[in-house]
Amino acid sequence: MTDFPSFVHIAEVGPREGFQFEPPHIVTADKIRLINALSETGVPEIECASFVNPKVVPQMADVVQIAEGITKRQGVTYGCMWLNAKGFLQARDSGLTTPALTSGSASDTFLQRNNNRTPEEQIKGQRDLRALYSENGLGSGPIYLFTAFGCNYEGEIPVEKALQRCAELVQVCEEAGTPPANITLCDTIGAADPMQVRALVSAVREKWDYPVALHLHDTRGLGIANVMAGLELGVARFDASVGGLGGCPFAGHKSAAGNVATEEVALLCDRLGIATGIDIPALIEAARLAEEIVRHPLTSKLAHAGTFNRHP
Amino acid sequence: MTDFPSFVHIAEVGPREGFQFEPPHIVTADKIRLINALSETGVPEIECASFVNPKVVPQMADVVQIAEGITKRQGVTYGCMWLNAKGFLQARDSGLTTPALTSGSASDTFLQRNNNRTPEEQIKGQRDLRALYSENGLGSGPIYLFTAFGCNYEGEIPVEKALQRCAELVQVCEEAGTPPANITLCDTIGAADPMQVRALVSAVREKWDYPVALHLHDTRGLGIANVMAGLELGVARFDASVGGLGGCPFAGHKSAAGNVATEEVALLCDRLGIATGIDIPALIEAARLAEEIVRHPLTSKLAHAGTFNRHP
Repeated sequence: MTDFPSFVHIAEVGPREGFQFEPPHIVTADKIRLINALSETGVPEIECASFVNPKVVPQMADVVQIAEGITKRQGVTYGCMWLNAKGFLQARDSGLTTPALTSGSASDTFLQRNNNRTPEEQIKGQRDLRALYSENGLGSGPIYLFTAFGCNYEGEIPVEKALQRCAELVQVCEEAGTPPANITLCDTIGAADPMQVRALVSAVREKWDYPVALHLHDTRGLGIANVMAGLELGVARFDASVGGLGGCPFAGHKSAAGNVATEEVALLCDRLGIATGIDIPALIEAARLAEEIVRHPLTSKLAHAGTFNRHP
Repeated sequence: MTDFPSFVHIAEVGPREGFQFEPPHIVTADKIRLINALSETGVPEIECASFVNPKVVPQMADVVQIAEGITKRQGVTYGCMWLNAKGFLQARDSGLTTPALTSGSASDTFLQRNNNRTPEEQIKGQRDLRALYSENGLGSGPIYLFTAFGCNYEGEIPVEKALQRCAELVQVCEEAGTPPANITLCDTIGAADPMQVRALVSAVREKWDYPVALHLHDTRGLGIANVMAGLELGVARFDASVGGLGGCPFAGHKSAAGNVATEEVALLCDRLGIATGIDIPALIEAARLAEEIVRHPLTSKLAHAGTFNRHP
């Protein structure tokens, strides 16, 4: 009836998603403090920052200082993101890990409005980036398919459409001799429900043998049910954000929720007997630190309530 | 693979759960305003108040004024709760609907600490109440089994233990010639996970033919995944609270989450093709009114983000 994985890899994306979304009042020392605290919780991977234009995203202007300032703990991957070749080259030189990221959008309208690109331009850009990765010695990396389930312009995205855009990205990777390390389906605006997660994950699985990962936003409160749907299909890699850090610039409400909260995903896994390597009470402490740093309540319920002792 | 019901009855318990939990600053007119707003959203049932000792729960001192002040809309059931014969008699005279409630706790320690009763005293009290209901012409009513999945003193409650305490309550109802209208399994402190929900719902189903209902708290963020688990087993009756009103006095943190949010349960049902009769945008407006009335942010994510237009 269920096909739970025995271990789930949870990538902590709170610093990148959160610091990008918050007003630019957060000092670099606090960002470093949070990343260092997260390093002590057992999360295997932390996405620390985005290498983007600081004129457009002033919150990320201190990304080099962050990369230099954190205390790297052995066994933890300190990753980052970028949108173009310039960003990648800065990231490469930062000392952070650079997964060879190939990305696109299932919604063409979202791509146009958000990145000002046509699907063809996006694929060409990704092909160029993939060549640059290979020149720099990077092998296989993840595919990120944004708005995989729906977008605020086009509404629900049909499975066939998501598969088509995904296939183009798979081809970019395969052509370069670097087949994707995984296919990460992103619910960028929190549009998905559990049946949609099942349908798209199953369809991707049927078409390719690459591992499927999920990057789920909890914008409308269905996030953890969507995680559960993924776990039941054996999905073993999730992005999540401590305390639910981050928000949704597309929701038209500043207090809209961000990613699923890392500690709630870890709790669900723990309750289902799935290992994550995460120390949940330590992660709850990190969520409370994040809340202190951003100076407003975060959406994680577990961070507020604390754990429940099943065997007192 | 799934056994979704075609219609789900969602009972709105926000006024009772919320006004009971909030500090006693909320004026009666605001309580009435919220109940009236909820009446316009299509929810079929609203639990308005508890008939309890106002010296112990001063928030409920105005329950008679609430019952008299609301504008009753046809087709909506305006219910209430009580804990003993005195409360029931007041409720009976209030004009609110009095479902013949038989209740108990799966956790004996919780019963002792919270109600100062042994399991035997609880059953005797329920038998007396059940006789009083019959004297007052009330037929079958629901069973509420509190702490059905776990409690903060005993931890996780084994299925066998929950079944045993449930069987005693079933017997009280059956003996009186009024078999239970449903068995409501309550996750009083937000201890459950989806596999536990499946296990207990299935076990209750195997033992009795009475409909199973779920009253789920979202204390640790797993609430909506637990709702999903219930829906997949065909559970067709849920309690929920607008905006996530209410909290958890047992969580040791004043901002711990309350019940699953009604609008999020309604959204999940809607996305799964299950009818609820609820106008989700109207309910979101009611959640925002509730937030205004309690003067602090509520935990519902959907209420903050708004709906997603699948077919723009």
